[in-house]
Amino acid sequence: MPDLIKGNAVIGQSGGPTAVINQSLVGVIEGLRSAGAGTSGNPIKKILGMRHGVTGLVNDDLYDLTDYPHDRLQLLARTPSAGLGSTRDKPDAAFCEKIFEACLKHDIRYFFYIGGNDSSDTCRIVNELSNEKGYELRCFHIPKTVDNDLMINDHTPGFPSAARFVAKACMADFLDNISLPGIKINVIMGRHAGFLTAASALARRDDRYEYEGSSTDGPQLIYLPEVAFDTERFIEDVATMFDRHGRCHIAVSEGIADKDGNSIGGQLIKNGQTDAHGNLQLSGSGALGDALSDLLKAKLKPVGGKAVRVRADTFGYVQRCFPDQSPVDMKEARGVGRYAARLATSGDVDGSVAIIRTSPIGEGQPYACKYQRIELSDVAAKTKHMPAEFIEGHNNVSQKFLDYCRPLVGDLPLYERI
Amino acid sequence: MPDLIKGNAVIGQSGGPTAVINQSLVGVIEGLRSAGAGTSGNPIKKILGMRHGVTGLVNDDLYDLTDYPHDRLQLLARTPSAGLGSTRDKPDAAFCEKIFEACLKHDIRYFFYIGGNDSSDTCRIVNELSNEKGYELRCFHIPKTVDNDLMINDHTPGFPSAARFVAKACMADFLDNISLPGIKINVIMGRHAGFLTAASALARRDDRYEYEGSSTDGPQLIYLPEVAFDTERFIEDVATMFDRHGRCHIAVSEGIADKDGNSIGGQLIKNGQTDAHGNLQLSGSGALGDALSDLLKAKLKPVGGKAVRVRADTFGYVQRCFPDQSPVDMKEARGVGRYAARLATSGDVDGSVAIIRTSPIGEGQPYACKYQRIELSDVAAKTKHMPAEFIEGHNNVSQKFLDYCRPLVGDLPLYERI
Repeated sequence: MPDLIKGNAVIGQSGGPTAVINQSLVGVIEGLRSAGAGTSGNPIKKILGMRHGVTGLVNDDLYDLTDYPHDRLQLLARTPSAGLGSTRDKPDAAFCEKIFEACLKHDIRYFFYIGGNDSSDTCRIVNELSNEKGYELRCFHIPKTVDNDLMINDHTPGFPSAARFVAKACMADFLDNISLPGIKINVIMGRHAGFLTAASALARRDDRYEYEGSSTDGPQLIYLPEVAFDTERFIEDVATMFDRHGRCHIAVSEGIADKDGNSIGGQLIKNGQTDAHGNLQLSGSGALGDALSDLLKAKLKPVGGKAVRVRADTFGYVQRCFPDQSPVDMKEARGVGRYAARLATSGDVDGSVAIIRTSPIGEGQPYACKYQRIELSDVAAKTKHMPAEFIEGHNNVSQKFLDYCRPLVGDLPLYERI
Repeated sequence: MPDLIKGNAVIGQSGGPTAVINQSLVGVIEGLRSAGAGTSGNPIKKILGMRHGVTGLVNDDLYDLTDYPHDRLQLLARTPSAGLGSTRDKPDAAFCEKIFEACLKHDIRYFFYIGGNDSSDTCRIVNELSNEKGYELRCFHIPKTVDNDLMINDHTPGFPSAARFVAKACMADFLDNISLPGIKINVIMGRHAGFLTAASALARRDDRYEYEGSSTDGPQLIYLPEVAFDTERFIEDVATMFDRHGRCHIAVSEGIADKDGNSIGGQLIKNGQTDAHGNLQLSGSGALGDALSDLLKAKLKPVGGKAVRVRADTFGYVQRCFPDQSPVDMKEARGVGRYAARLATSGDVDGSVAIIRTSPIGEGQPYACKYQRIELSDVAAKTKHMPAEFIEGHNNVSQKFLDYCRPLVGDLPLYERI
């Protein structure tokens, strides 16, 4: 057993929940337990849980998870959304000072925070504060975000399961669209990164992919935040596809922006709310889809004297928490939690855990990955975008993206078309 | 073998697709095949499929399904949405005349139409026309609708799978809501009948159901088309629940209407489209949810100087086609198709197939049902509503409804709450 520093451990969850964020929570608990935490004579006495992230920590609102029963832990791991409660609060320097004081008060020496890039920034500030004060705090960020936008990481826990939902929902909705043809828009999460919207392309069946130079399977048009959105070109794209197939199936990221970087949703969504990070509410509203739908209704020529049928759905919060965890995601979300606990109990280190793919990306290639410690500053408050090689033209994704994404989401249902 | 009338069989699908409508299609094909259809010397020569319902029939747009391979049929049965293509056209008398002429032209003696109450009305008119003309046509309606609103039927194929999606989505979304508290509205399909919205109550865990006289588990408030919607009372309900729990999780049917029967969605949705049945587009838009959300944002008192977090999602088309068929639904959707084929090949009869529950409704009661022929006029163009015994107060469902619904949707995931 390594020379463990004496004190308690605390774990928090932050930001938008996912289908597997509790896997990571359970992973940390299991990792700490395998280092003996909570057993008689072990330097780590208690495993605490922050209720609603650092807000709970500073308010002494803590769960004691030290003796949480094993069978309930296994069920918790399968439970979507943040079991400890989450928070959207973005701590400033004064708040981070309070977090540090709470760590002193509760004799915390092991600090684990599961979240996205804002959460890793909180982790970084708290860690720097403890270094300044000469207080040994083993501070670990554990990656989580359906947006898949953390630097260095090949992908992030939560994304594969959300991508699985998006792919299945788009498959079902495409089959609905060919059954009752018209124009269908689906708005998908992703404020700055288009990975989740891009995953809609997995809904396509390969054998019908190409037809007269465009996909007959939906979604036929995919709009990502990484590619400047031009309203006129959008209308043209849809009109062309509709002329050719008599229908059109479209995936749009909530984060699409024009060439100057102005959010299209921001321009169209009335009465929106902003969160503590200053972000405008994009999810939890159908406004962007409805606005794009109204635009097409107004601009597209009627067919046979009848207005073209245009519908828009916004996948909403269900996409991040639907209880259908991808097998890879389950395993890795648990794995990064365990790995962080193992690192924190192996010496005076801190950092973030990254998932690094060790297998080549390509059709039929077996998938493999490893976990690796990286610096908190490598991921804190930074955003990864879809690389150019994953994007094709202004409204599609590349084969390389499909090869990248497919092993993550797991097997998808097969379909028959007459 | 019964004395079969010589001619071809045709099958069509109509109205909004479901996750199991192809089970019924395959059931009819299997039923006809077991009567020898398509084999040498059998009076039923061909099994045809209408492309996009009766529209395809009158336009000679037909598939020949007589020799469709068995393994592809099995896959088709598992495929969501209408494999033949569907239609929203509501045939008038002149159009029904054309359908009848198409039957003559294609030597059709067996006519199967899978759909809801509008579809059964088409069936009824065509059947009456053939009776008038003295043309023996064995005309069967096979029930299908996620709205669950067909008379006599205990429930209708398509509803259990859609209810399964709604229950799982509400479970996931409720866990999201307790993780990041606020007010969350989910808008669910059902123009006149509230069954699908009511199914959201299956998301609740029994052991936390009651707390200070109201459900702590979501959805805590359920608004059905069967109960007059009063905007002021709605705001009060939400404010009370929010005061008590610091959060509120709400299920609203798209079909809610005020005490005079005026659709709330109709009053709020701008720029809507109507279908051939004169129905205003309610699905494929987030307008109702957004309008209710705006209402609450405007009327609820801020907490600690901050506006209350209000979000609305509209489940959209995904709820009717998500590829997660309930086991009971799969079996029954196939069963009603087979049963219709068996009846049609057993004598000169016509009608609709109804699902009749033969077991008592009650917790822990094993579920059983039977199929029964009923008259086309029993279901045609009629709508079943939630019976009073399934409704509790003005914003909840009864235990009896839960007992009614639970065996239909199948096992739901278990969850752990810390």
